[in-house]
Amino acid sequence: MNTIYLNSLRINSSRLCQFIRDMAQIGATPNGGCNRQALTDLDRQGRALFLDWCEAIGGQPRLDSMGNLFVRFRGDNDALDPILMGSHLDTQPTGGKYDGVYGVLAALEVMTTLADSNITLPRPVEIVVWSNEEGARFSPAMSGSGVFAGKLKQADIYRSSDDDGVSYLDALTRSQQLGTIPCQAFPFKAALELHIEQGPILEAQRKTIGVVSGVQGMNWYQITLSGASVHAGPTPMQMRQDPVQGMVNVLSQLFSKTAEYGEAARLTVGKIATHPSSPNTVPERVTFTLDVRHPDQACLDALSQALLTLCQRAAEPHRLSCDIEVLWQSPAVAFDSPCIAAIQTAADQLALDSMPIVSGAGHDSVYLSGVGPTAMIFVPCKDGISHNEKEHTEPAQLVAGANVLLHSLIQLSA
Amino acid sequence: MNTIYLNSLRINSSRLCQFIRDMAQIGATPNGGCNRQALTDLDRQGRALFLDWCEAIGGQPRLDSMGNLFVRFRGDNDALDPILMGSHLDTQPTGGKYDGVYGVLAALEVMTTLADSNITLPRPVEIVVWSNEEGARFSPAMSGSGVFAGKLKQADIYRSSDDDGVSYLDALTRSQQLGTIPCQAFPFKAALELHIEQGPILEAQRKTIGVVSGVQGMNWYQITLSGASVHAGPTPMQMRQDPVQGMVNVLSQLFSKTAEYGEAARLTVGKIATHPSSPNTVPERVTFTLDVRHPDQACLDALSQALLTLCQRAAEPHRLSCDIEVLWQSPAVAFDSPCIAAIQTAADQLALDSMPIVSGAGHDSVYLSGVGPTAMIFVPCKDGISHNEKEHTEPAQLVAGANVLLHSLIQLSA
Repeated sequence: MNTIYLNSLRINSSRLCQFIRDMAQIGATPNGGCNRQALTDLDRQGRALFLDWCEAIGGQPRLDSMGNLFVRFRGDNDALDPILMGSHLDTQPTGGKYDGVYGVLAALEVMTTLADSNITLPRPVEIVVWSNEEGARFSPAMSGSGVFAGKLKQADIYRSSDDDGVSYLDALTRSQQLGTIPCQAFPFKAALELHIEQGPILEAQRKTIGVVSGVQGMNWYQITLSGASVHAGPTPMQMRQDPVQGMVNVLSQLFSKTAEYGEAARLTVGKIATHPSSPNTVPERVTFTLDVRHPDQACLDALSQALLTLCQRAAEPHRLSCDIEVLWQSPAVAFDSPCIAAIQTAADQLALDSMPIVSGAGHDSVYLSGVGPTAMIFVPCKDGISHNEKEHTEPAQLVAGANVLLHSLIQLSA
Repeated sequence: MNTIYLNSLRINSSRLCQFIRDMAQIGATPNGGCNRQALTDLDRQGRALFLDWCEAIGGQPRLDSMGNLFVRFRGDNDALDPILMGSHLDTQPTGGKYDGVYGVLAALEVMTTLADSNITLPRPVEIVVWSNEEGARFSPAMSGSGVFAGKLKQADIYRSSDDDGVSYLDALTRSQQLGTIPCQAFPFKAALELHIEQGPILEAQRKTIGVVSGVQGMNWYQITLSGASVHAGPTPMQMRQDPVQGMVNVLSQLFSKTAEYGEAARLTVGKIATHPSSPNTVPERVTFTLDVRHPDQACLDALSQALLTLCQRAAEPHRLSCDIEVLWQSPAVAFDSPCIAAIQTAADQLALDSMPIVSGAGHDSVYLSGVGPTAMIFVPCKDGISHNEKEHTEPAQLVAGANVLLHSLIQLSA
């Protein structure tokens, strides 16, 4: 294959946008978003449409026992390990048109572009549609890739049920997505996931491509500060054991400490509750969550430990007790260096403004990176908004991302 | 009447404690408290027991249209304005044995002591049992005294209903507490209310008697700080419009500002809620209540204004909007100087350790002070705990308070 010819190859912009528009019709919401939750009839319809498109260019589909859908395209040497490209087609209940879907349909467009030019790559390619990435209908999220990577147990996921009491296994059967192939990892040369950023950084930095170096590690804690509940009137301030005053003192220190760990560190306090919760009663206790993130595991560990120590120490002057519960921990992930390099090279070749970026959100690629070389490509999303019907990425950015995917694939398949 | 004889008069300690123990049997809870909510069958039983005791010493009962119960004892000149003594017999659902009840039963013990010695005071005395002081069953609280003082409308209160949909008027009828006399203020020489402190100050200061100079004014506000809800992972800290960071900054300043207003100022943040409330989402908004109190109305006004200004200003650097809602305002009350002086004199005569004190909680006397000379006497309560089954005051303190009530009454009736 002529390298100069390959380097000049570009995806078909209007067809990519048409794929996205057509798919968005299935489960379209009145406000311009999508409701196509995992293993519903709409999810089945979406996958069927996608399969029609794939089969028109020679893709060979197979389903595994978790409902993960693989569409295989032959390579020059079909015995070599394949390259995986993909993401998910399920959405949040009031989700957008791009989260996950873009990664799958851009992969389709890449394979369609290659087919248009009768190009067969040296090794096989598989487009993957992972099951139940969103976790909106069945908890936990990313269950398809989680079982594939051996991090979740299929039997546990089969038993989980939606709000109507339908089990995952029943939903797999009803939606005709239960495959006969066992869900388990197989060797692959590389796995690429193209995704909207779901954050504001690329937009703010005016970059078109984010070369994702990894995924933030995160630790979730629930902190309970306990004091004494007294009437708001009679008790002088200095005689109180007021957990709210303690929390204000604690949180002020935690936000300052997080800032010391630099721009990559994140601290979110998403839930706060007082008990009892009455305007004229000093609460007996206050409970709040900490979501701590950092892309470097050692920094995450150090920051988390510093924050928990501050919680304990700051409680003392207010004569409060401090109880710490670990809710969840997800270690930091570093993506595969050769995959990252291929993406960076592709962006440079295409003369696209790019920057290294760390994913703040979880993705199927987090699990996948545990069983093979994996990396991600980000494109901007307007105002950093996702999981929302307003989710939007400009067509030029969608096209740029798909071209980076194409040329990353070409490099990695060599 | 011989003054020396009168000065040596003391209430009967064991009888007072027996009154309290017997009344506490009606609605007794397993943990040693009382559940005798307003206008229930148990409330009716409690009032009936109280009336038996009153009628045995010649008290003449009457009910008004709000269910306020007045028991009149004739004076030497029955045409003179009466002195009122009393409080309430209703309790919180898991209330104690003393809140309100002590003030009524101590007044009964005072009149029984006078009857034992065949003493008739120069003017009539009425023991008052105010309806629905607690507000636990029917909102608002202090509805009996509020209508009496013309601050609440009887028609509004009649329509209010409990959690089972029973209206105040129905409850009045069912509990046989609906009187034929219109509920409205009449002239009185003085009104005295003896009460447990419901706070920790007397205990901490090792004083037996609190000479209550007035009641704190209080302002209730609800503050809403609104920013932008984003995913906890992808959005850098400095790009967030995080209402929780704003709230921490605001509350830190509010507690400092309150401290500048001295020991008499109080700030309580009893309710805090984030929306949405999810560990991995920066909330769009956070809502919290401020309960601001000060015994001096000018100071309360100045402090409240300073706090609200700080809320507005502190929101700006976080790019938040600040919405302020006034939930409730209750002006500071100064009690009647001659009544206060009589209480102080009585405590001094009895050689009891006393101190001036401001009530942090609301009482029927707040409303009553608007229509006649009013004051209150406080005794300590253990650990400042009330509205709780653990509510406790030592018998010697109960007796001391009742003796102060007796001698305040004797002075004021002259």
